[in-house]
Amino acid sequence: MPITVPVLPAGVDPAWLPPEALRPLGSRRTLVDGSGPLVETVHGEVAQGCARFGGAVVRDSHTRGPRGVPGVSYASEASETSYDLVLRVVRDGNAHRPRHADLGPLRDLGEEGFVHERAGGTTTITASGQRGLLYGLFHVVRLGEDAFRGDRTPEAHRPATELRMLDHWDNVAVHPVMGQVERGYAGGSLFWRNGRPVADLERVRGYGRLLAACGINAVSVNNVNVHEAEAHLLTDRVGDVARIADVLRPYGIRTHLSVNFASPVLLGGQDCADPLDTAVRAWWAGAARGVYAAVPDFGGFVVKADSEGQPGPFTYGRSHADGANMLAAALAPHGGTVHWRAFVYDHRQDWRDRSSDRACAAYDHFAPLDGEFADNAVLQVKHGPMDFQVREPVSPVLGALPRTRVAVEVQATQEYTGQQQHVCWLGPMWSEVLRFRPEGERGAAVGESARGGMVAVSNVGDDLFWTGHPLAQANLYTFGRLAWQPDADPRRILDEWIALTFPSAAERLANGLRTVLQHSWRTYEKYTAPLGVGFMVQPGHHYGPGIDGYEYSPWGTYHFADRDGIGVDRSAATGTGYAAQYAEPWAALYESRDSCPDELLLFFHHVPYGHVLNSGKTVVQHIYDTHFEGVEEAEEARRVWAGLAGLVEPARHARVAERYEEQVRCAREWRDQVNSYFLRKSGVPDERGRAIY
Amino acid sequence: MPITVPVLPAGVDPAWLPPEALRPLGSRRTLVDGSGPLVETVHGEVAQGCARFGGAVVRDSHTRGPRGVPGVSYASEASETSYDLVLRVVRDGNAHRPRHADLGPLRDLGEEGFVHERAGGTTTITASGQRGLLYGLFHVVRLGEDAFRGDRTPEAHRPATELRMLDHWDNVAVHPVMGQVERGYAGGSLFWRNGRPVADLERVRGYGRLLAACGINAVSVNNVNVHEAEAHLLTDRVGDVARIADVLRPYGIRTHLSVNFASPVLLGGQDCADPLDTAVRAWWAGAARGVYAAVPDFGGFVVKADSEGQPGPFTYGRSHADGANMLAAALAPHGGTVHWRAFVYDHRQDWRDRSSDRACAAYDHFAPLDGEFADNAVLQVKHGPMDFQVREPVSPVLGALPRTRVAVEVQATQEYTGQQQHVCWLGPMWSEVLRFRPEGERGAAVGESARGGMVAVSNVGDDLFWTGHPLAQANLYTFGRLAWQPDADPRRILDEWIALTFPSAAERLANGLRTVLQHSWRTYEKYTAPLGVGFMVQPGHHYGPGIDGYEYSPWGTYHFADRDGIGVDRSAATGTGYAAQYAEPWAALYESRDSCPDELLLFFHHVPYGHVLNSGKTVVQHIYDTHFEGVEEAEEARRVWAGLAGLVEPARHARVAERYEEQVRCAREWRDQVNSYFLRKSGVPDERGRAIY
Repeated sequence: MPITVPVLPAGVDPAWLPPEALRPLGSRRTLVDGSGPLVETVHGEVAQGCARFGGAVVRDSHTRGPRGVPGVSYASEASETSYDLVLRVVRDGNAHRPRHADLGPLRDLGEEGFVHERAGGTTTITASGQRGLLYGLFHVVRLGEDAFRGDRTPEAHRPATELRMLDHWDNVAVHPVMGQVERGYAGGSLFWRNGRPVADLERVRGYGRLLAACGINAVSVNNVNVHEAEAHLLTDRVGDVARIADVLRPYGIRTHLSVNFASPVLLGGQDCADPLDTAVRAWWAGAARGVYAAVPDFGGFVVKADSEGQPGPFTYGRSHADGANMLAAALAPHGGTVHWRAFVYDHRQDWRDRSSDRACAAYDHFAPLDGEFADNAVLQVKHGPMDFQVREPVSPVLGALPRTRVAVEVQATQEYTGQQQHVCWLGPMWSEVLRFRPEGERGAAVGESARGGMVAVSNVGDDLFWTGHPLAQANLYTFGRLAWQPDADPRRILDEWIALTFPSAAERLANGLRTVLQHSWRTYEKYTAPLGVGFMVQPGHHYGPGIDGYEYSPWGTYHFADRDGIGVDRSAATGTGYAAQYAEPWAALYESRDSCPDELLLFFHHVPYGHVLNSGKTVVQHIYDTHFEGVEEAEEARRVWAGLAGLVEPARHARVAERYEEQVRCAREWRDQVNSYFLRKSGVPDERGRAIY
Repeated sequence: MPITVPVLPAGVDPAWLPPEALRPLGSRRTLVDGSGPLVETVHGEVAQGCARFGGAVVRDSHTRGPRGVPGVSYASEASETSYDLVLRVVRDGNAHRPRHADLGPLRDLGEEGFVHERAGGTTTITASGQRGLLYGLFHVVRLGEDAFRGDRTPEAHRPATELRMLDHWDNVAVHPVMGQVERGYAGGSLFWRNGRPVADLERVRGYGRLLAACGINAVSVNNVNVHEAEAHLLTDRVGDVARIADVLRPYGIRTHLSVNFASPVLLGGQDCADPLDTAVRAWWAGAARGVYAAVPDFGGFVVKADSEGQPGPFTYGRSHADGANMLAAALAPHGGTVHWRAFVYDHRQDWRDRSSDRACAAYDHFAPLDGEFADNAVLQVKHGPMDFQVREPVSPVLGALPRTRVAVEVQATQEYTGQQQHVCWLGPMWSEVLRFRPEGERGAAVGESARGGMVAVSNVGDDLFWTGHPLAQANLYTFGRLAWQPDADPRRILDEWIALTFPSAAERLANGLRTVLQHSWRTYEKYTAPLGVGFMVQPGHHYGPGIDGYEYSPWGTYHFADRDGIGVDRSAATGTGYAAQYAEPWAALYESRDSCPDELLLFFHHVPYGHVLNSGKTVVQHIYDTHFEGVEEAEEARRVWAGLAGLVEPARHARVAERYEEQVRCAREWRDQVNSYFLRKSGVPDERGRAIY
């Protein structure tokens, strides 16, 4: 029985899989050849498309698929050339062969890869595993009519990394401060509501389908800050997890769980959670067995340990490798992975002490542990050394542990980038991170060397548009596609997203969407914290400007502005030494204020307001100029969007238009507060005499 | 049947009425002469004291009091001279006369006054009303053994004002941000818990007794921000109010209610809440009848209208006199009073606009309405023009409405003065306000002219020590006593509180308490916002330093510090004109930066950091010096308190000691943040080279 396409609740946006997106495929004659649950998903997708658009889907007669399904006929190999599209899983010992003898790479495709070719009027997707077939299907969907034109020599596609994951910071119980979803800006949780699992998981199934269509294959279903109710998901509430896993599995997605390092104490009645304690290790082994009994393909654990108040191995004088390896050992017999977060720093720092530098912390903690982590342990590293600011250098940790499986963590949820009230398409930022070569210009790019995969904090909730701001869907889609192919041009991915989401878009609409999205990250950067200095946000909720909001706090996030200058001296010569955590040429590049890229200058150096940037402007004039420009760009984007009325469904247009009002209001607030702050502090007037208060 | 003294739950501090405080009276022979419920309260107090300390209490045979109460005997007038203490209510037509023919003032004492005399070994309290007898009783308690020494010619005592009120900002339902008690730092509410009334009101009875003992006669039982659950206290939940009123009544306390101006819409199904609408007026009249049916001596309504988002008459184009008079009309037939708060300002101000000044708002709104308010309307005015900062000028509104009953509102709950983590005895500040003569040096003092009485926001909750910080009890006591006698020396009141609270205190303890309390307000001022500038607090919770916390906010609370200087120009000549709201000589005094008192300089003027104060110091050096001094004084107070261990019950000593740790930590944070902020901004080094960051 093929799996049917999920039916979303009324009003829920279909995102990048509107029915129309399936027309090119659904209007044709397709053979689906293979067996297994994910092949059923593929078959269901095609069958649904055909039912809608008049095509036909046929199951191969050799497969062991179900028979007698109404409306489905069965074909023999002989008739293959009569199909427009063949979707086939080939396994060792399978009687079916690829049509081309030169498909040697097929055997290297793994479970997730596929070969795409077109000849004699037939487009063929050949995969050696079921997931590959699913991804091949969505590849055809993305290509649309192009998939059925001309000939195409065989192309092998496979993801750059095995782990392409979304971490949900969803709480089971509503947290008194953080709510149902920590740093969530898209309504409630898809999984949890007021302490209970969501009853109807059809929406989750629709989510799984969207994720499969952009290549994501792992989801962690609860917040990395694991509070009381959430801790129990590991044991007596594992059934709640299994229900979600059952729904995500047909889309090739493995379910993961954030766990509390102190679980043996909290849940197991143990005296301690020492990772070298035999009873503790046995407890975790038992817990893992229990999880796998409920979820046979469970992905593994995500752990935030010794971080912002969460418990961890430091309590017992153990290293983070000890902690991670204990959990890895519990998961190993079952094929699970532990994602161990490297976000460890002193969040009770004394702002008076300029020698301490939070940016140094992850490297200092983890670089010495290279080679000590188990094979099924992944060190999950935030892309920058601080915390998802609009501009940070790439974390030196990403180049510091060659013998460790490292994952790059990015934040799709826009905690520091406008909280889905502002348009801020993060594709270019993530792409910069993935293309960075931490070991030097001839070393591997982050996107190649991060063997632990890519992780994003999800920006999705139960909002009708999934992401609060309809245009923030592009961030989720882009993340999935970049995780699959880290060296992809993000602009191409954006075009994909536009074409899928708006399949009948006039060119004017497509151009308009490109215009408002493409440079939106730079626009956001322009009107917020300047030159990489970061953290000029309102404390707590992190929305809107608070120039000194974190300046005298214990969080280690300072800009040190005084009447003469601003910035953090992180040089080795006179500063905190952070620049020296990089390999050459980066260490030297960042060490000198002359060679340091403008956009990171204040991250690495404390300079006078009159310091002249490579751009030829002084720092303070740059601040004024970018802040005026940023607002103008936001206003212009709002104008462009207004001009698209009539080309977009009214509800979506209205939602975006309304958020542009807020974005422009907030951008002006940023502009005026930042400019006034620096005028008051520096006394340097704007060269162009614009209004500063 | 005499009312028994309340039995407080285990562990609750007896505050300023420990059993020992009743010893001087309870060890003697007392005649109680009069009838009525409050006389029963007096009798109960004396009887309880006698039961404990061996004295005897006798009811006069002519009273209509109950007979046959076990342990109580009844005396005739003839035996009067054989008593140590006579407590007597004398009414017109009463057969009993005052012993002295020259007691003319007796008939001017009103319901609350009393005459105190001593002759022939008998101390006599004579009152013309029951409340007067109650206050006379506690007068004797305060005097202690002195009440029974020598002779004393008759002294008349009566309160300066009829209304001496505590406003509780207690929510019925827990507010998601503000909690059970808005700006409460003493645990939960005495009245409400999680949406329901507190079941056992014995604690409330104990509270009423404490209030009676310091002269408070009115309590408002819910927050001036009247949310959904609280609104219903006016109608279907008035029974909850009646229960509280029943418990407070025997202590001479009338119960008041904060009401939502939009109640006719919220609760009554009316189309509007227009104060001139006939149906609306009828609705309020009916609501008032309903309240008085449940609470015959109900005090009246407290209203926060058109203030910080609360509804009000502006919605209907009506004046605040219209609004207040509508409620006054509803209350008048029953003898009730409306307390109408003057805290009306634009809380969505644009920080860019320096011509707007929140300080001007109350005067601008209310001064033109003088003479328009009904006789039973009281205009409740915060003591300063802003919001309970540690230092503000006295509100010019207090001198601007001679034909209006104005009440002075102060804040016993230490929202901006250390939140009951810091010792900050506010007696001297309140006394300065009450002694200020708004109409000029020969005009009446605020304490004389405020015919609407005195109101404090209560600092009490269900904490074991009532006020979180045990020493914060002194603020509540001092408020009550100053409300009774606004020209009293607050240091004398502090001594009273010490003597009552620690009846067997060694002189060293009394001296220690005096030392840590007497100058604590100035100490707090020294280490927080300098020279009257105010509002350098963390946004939202208002605890701890946030120098720029409100600088770019919509709240109208700015200091305008730049690299050259700081302060708000409120002069008439060049600033917002606020100074001109005062009568002379104050207007001229504040107008000039030369004559403006140092402690208010930055409230009235924007001056360069190098401006020399009357003290001879520059502004910036004053900032540095006071901040170092403030911390030293807090450290010294902590040291003094530590030295009192052994003289104070361990639980109380520990609670205070623990809070001193926090106070010193926080004071250092204030010192370092304020000093660093001004060093970074001004560039002027500390003359004494102390550590600034």
